[in-house]
Amino acid sequence: MSALDNLLNDLVIANRILAKEDVVDAYGHVSVRHPDRPDRFFLARSLAPEFITRDDILEFSLDGKVVDPNEKRAPYLERFIHGGIFESRPDVMAVVHAHAEDILPFGLTGNTPLRPVIHSGSFIGSNVPVWDIADKFGDTNLLVANVEQGQDLAKCLGSANIALMRGHGFAAAARSLIEVVRMSVYLPRNARALWRAKQLGGEIKYLSQGEIDARNRGYSPYSVETWRAWHYWATKAGVGKLVTRPTDPKAGKAAAKKPAKKAKPARRKK
Amino acid sequence: MSALDNLLNDLVIANRILAKEDVVDAYGHVSVRHPDRPDRFFLARSLAPEFITRDDILEFSLDGKVVDPNEKRAPYLERFIHGGIFESRPDVMAVVHAHAEDILPFGLTGNTPLRPVIHSGSFIGSNVPVWDIADKFGDTNLLVANVEQGQDLAKCLGSANIALMRGHGFAAAARSLIEVVRMSVYLPRNARALWRAKQLGGEIKYLSQGEIDARNRGYSPYSVETWRAWHYWATKAGVGKLVTRPTDPKAGKAAAKKPAKKAKPARRKK
Amino acid sequence: MSALDNLLNDLVIANRILAKEDVVDAYGHVSVRHPDRPDRFFLARSLAPEFITRDDILEFSLDGKVVDPNEKRAPYLERFIHGGIFESRPDVMAVVHAHAEDILPFGLTGNTPLRPVIHSGSFIGSNVPVWDIADKFGDTNLLVANVEQGQDLAKCLGSANIALMRGHGFAAAARSLIEVVRMSVYLPRNARALWRAKQLGGEIKYLSQGEIDARNRGYSPYSVETWRAWHYWATKAGVGKLVTRPTDPKAGKAAAKKPAKKAKPARRKK
Amino acid sequence: MSALDNLLNDLVIANRILAKEDVVDAYGHVSVRHPDRPDRFFLARSLAPEFITRDDILEFSLDGKVVDPNEKRAPYLERFIHGGIFESRPDVMAVVHAHAEDILPFGLTGNTPLRPVIHSGSFIGSNVPVWDIADKFGDTNLLVANVEQGQDLAKCLGSANIALMRGHGFAAAARSLIEVVRMSVYLPRNARALWRAKQLGGEIKYLSQGEIDARNRGYSPYSVETWRAWHYWATKAGVGKLVTRPTDPKAGKAAAKKPAKKAKPARRKK
Repeated sequence: MSALDNLLNDLVIANRILAKEDVVDAYGHVSVRHPDRPDRFFLARSLAPEFITRDDILEFSLDGKVVDPNEKRAPYLERFIHGGIFESRPDVMAVVHAHAEDILPFGLTGNTPLRPVIHSGSFIGSNVPVWDIADKFGDTNLLVANVEQGQDLAKCLGSANIALMRGHGFAAAARSLIEVVRMSVYLPRNARALWRAKQLGGEIKYLSQGEIDARNRGYSPYSVETWRAWHYWATKAGVGKLVTRPTDPKAGKAAAKKPAKKAKPARRKK
Repeated sequence: MSALDNLLNDLVIANRILAKEDVVDAYGHVSVRHPDRPDRFFLARSLAPEFITRDDILEFSLDGKVVDPNEKRAPYLERFIHGGIFESRPDVMAVVHAHAEDILPFGLTGNTPLRPVIHSGSFIGSNVPVWDIADKFGDTNLLVANVEQGQDLAKCLGSANIALMRGHGFAAAARSLIEVVRMSVYLPRNARALWRAKQLGGEIKYLSQGEIDARNRGYSPYSVETWRAWHYWATKAGVGKLVTRPTDPKAGKAAAKKPAKKAKPARRKK
Repeated sequence: MSALDNLLNDLVIANRILAKEDVVDAYGHVSVRHPDRPDRFFLARSLAPEFITRDDILEFSLDGKVVDPNEKRAPYLERFIHGGIFESRPDVMAVVHAHAEDILPFGLTGNTPLRPVIHSGSFIGSNVPVWDIADKFGDTNLLVANVEQGQDLAKCLGSANIALMRGHGFAAAARSLIEVVRMSVYLPRNARALWRAKQLGGEIKYLSQGEIDARNRGYSPYSVETWRAWHYWATKAGVGKLVTRPTDPKAGKAAAKKPAKKAKPARRKK
Repeated sequence: MSALDNLLNDLVIANRILAKEDVVDAYGHVSVRHPDRPDRFFLARSLAPEFITRDDILEFSLDGKVVDPNEKRAPYLERFIHGGIFESRPDVMAVVHAHAEDILPFGLTGNTPLRPVIHSGSFIGSNVPVWDIADKFGDTNLLVANVEQGQDLAKCLGSANIALMRGHGFAAAARSLIEVVRMSVYLPRNARALWRAKQLGGEIKYLSQGEIDARNRGYSPYSVETWRAWHYWATKAGVGKLVTRPTDPKAGKAAAKKPAKKAKPARRKK
């Protein structure tokens, strides 16, 4: 498999994991930047993530246009979320937009900012801004339906990893597919832990900035620990057989861009 | 398939979706108005929605009587909910009654009105009245067991889309089956988001009237986005193969009334 | 099938439903009084309810002794709950003991009595006493491990349908297996609705005594509506094929005591 | 099967149960001390517990080193939790570390100590200390990544059965695998009951010290009741066939150390 094939294969896996882990349902989507053309990204056609295969993935320019002029299938309405973030953040390689239920309350009230309280939630970062589409665009249907709205969301996101979207959901941006999936799975868990702790009362111990930094420093998408979750989630989602692993686990982020021999997935013994 | 066959096929799908999405269980039901005879509606015989097939669907007059004099199978006790709403609301084509657990608290206390806080909850409308059967009928078993009670519920509903029923559940009314199912699935989700936000404290940002209106204007039961959820839910409920699509996606609401060629359902690739 | 065979068949179904509906897990049990010998009852041997078949059911005297002197298999430790209630309540034909999680909080604080707030919760009755084993027996392992403790629990239950057991679970008593299963399934749902409404704040509208009475008057274990749930739950639990129905649906409670021809179960069409 | 084989077989079962019961997911692990060499313990290689088989289990010395010099597979990063506890607590035979979501809030706020409120939660003990890695090690990635950190956690645990780990999870220590699994399954349930009772308001009745002691005195890993849950959980987790039972159920804890004839597992009848 070429590096690009490998990446698109991972995008299929990412879709299935997000569906299985209840981050997306009929709605929500995940994209990845083109490894060789930073002005392009890949995103599925308008279809529930649980059903997505390689054939459903389309190539887009950053203004949300489908590259292939012969493509007749409808794209996602909110592809401008992805385009806007890829445009403003050259460091970002993968984006998720979803409506995961347990994060919604934190976008509805200014009372409690969503911040990391558990170690697996550290990657959401110490600042999770809330974007309210009404601030700039007034009364809309709340969907990010054009380039300008996507850019405004990206502006609110700034250099953060996650932006909550008031009354709607969230957008997550990361350096790799594995990382953006991981962040999207742990974001609702961190939200639940915080929501429950608030009800116990008393002062809450958030992760310190130093702890968040320490976790970021140690993170590698191909470490044994990170890979364990990716393989586990993919297997649960029924696509364990699609999982491939770069030959050199130390290659880290770069690995996704190089041709990698198909490694044998860790097989479940019977 | 004739337009009527198509509609009854959709009614079967609606039953299965509501069961799979935990809106109904042994109890709860969904009806659709007869497309050619506004004084008639279709509703299953007394059976859990998860088990319903085309053969279980009966035709009723608005006073809740089974049209077929030879029909021996028992109808739902609470069919008067449907008759009452279809009688008072000529614009309504489909009705759901259910006990979905997470909406119940909002019918038990006057403290917190159930209003849209998330975009997918917009269709419940800005005003969700609470009907208390005791107000007019005193001590009953809380079931809507006759024409008069059905009419009283419809009166409380007025021009709204949803009425909560104190200590019991809700009734939802919409322009199409797809819409009433969608509303019934997102109603509990909106209720949970509001309930959790209340516990975080602080002022809650509800959807504005302008946002609710904007979403209503943009809504079409056969848009790509709406169809995506219908297809997704049907597939999860095991009836993906029953899904048909009108030939012209732009035909909108009218399509359900016209003979439509059976379209190939979007197939899951393997 | 004889009336007794029918009843024991129903006891197997009851076990499976309670397991599937998360009322019991490895622990918890359901019993039925012997229809011809009021001083005897049937209860499974010590085994998780999900696994129970006809062969696992033993016959007990009211003091919790296994009737068959050759029986070597271990009985449930807490069989005295059943014996105690059957002894003190001649009207009771079936008993459930379980640890269903969502009712536990109501036994831990005197602040909020568990009372019916939803129509399906009416059968728990307007008074649900909380039994604390420590009141009479001091520091124990909280299990009802002898005749005296079973009798004390029954005394606390009095003429009620449900007693909560502090730090442990609940005991439910009813006129039939169908009724005791139904009550045990809806008890946690009523508890959740009340718990959530409490958090919304404001005054809660409980079912009135008149409403509870009206529902009790209308109740029949073989009504179309009650049967619908029994058949639905049994099918979900994988024992739909075991379901039999008395020939005369109007026979009501008495039917369980008379030989009943095996009726064809309502079949799921395909 | 030899006693050691039996024990490792039980360790596989323990892994699968913890996965099925949502105590662990991609992360979390369970270990058992070597029955003949108290300075050694067994723990799986770095793999999600749901996938673990006999071949994945490695032998470690108490400083977290793999005994087999030829072993190439990566161990869990946090194996020092196990080593630290086995070193400081000669009475402990089995250890679990996990992130079970519902216990997390209790480590985030000093307001509400996690104490037993339900009988099945008694084994967590009357004192559940909260270990904060930052107290001694400052800003870390929160993982227990070396001997010193493992020893510090063990010191905080002291003679208790459970230590919460702030922003991370918990560590549980017990006299046997069956007991440590049981404790880990009931810990989140006890946490939920306490969390919900707190919200009902009023004073909470915790288990008394006398009740906790009474339950401890009566506990035996091979009692009929304890075994029932082990067999039930294993069957649900798909490894019912792996379950073996010591020939003498009265043998208690010692049984795990002696060669035991393979007993026929209680079979599910059809």
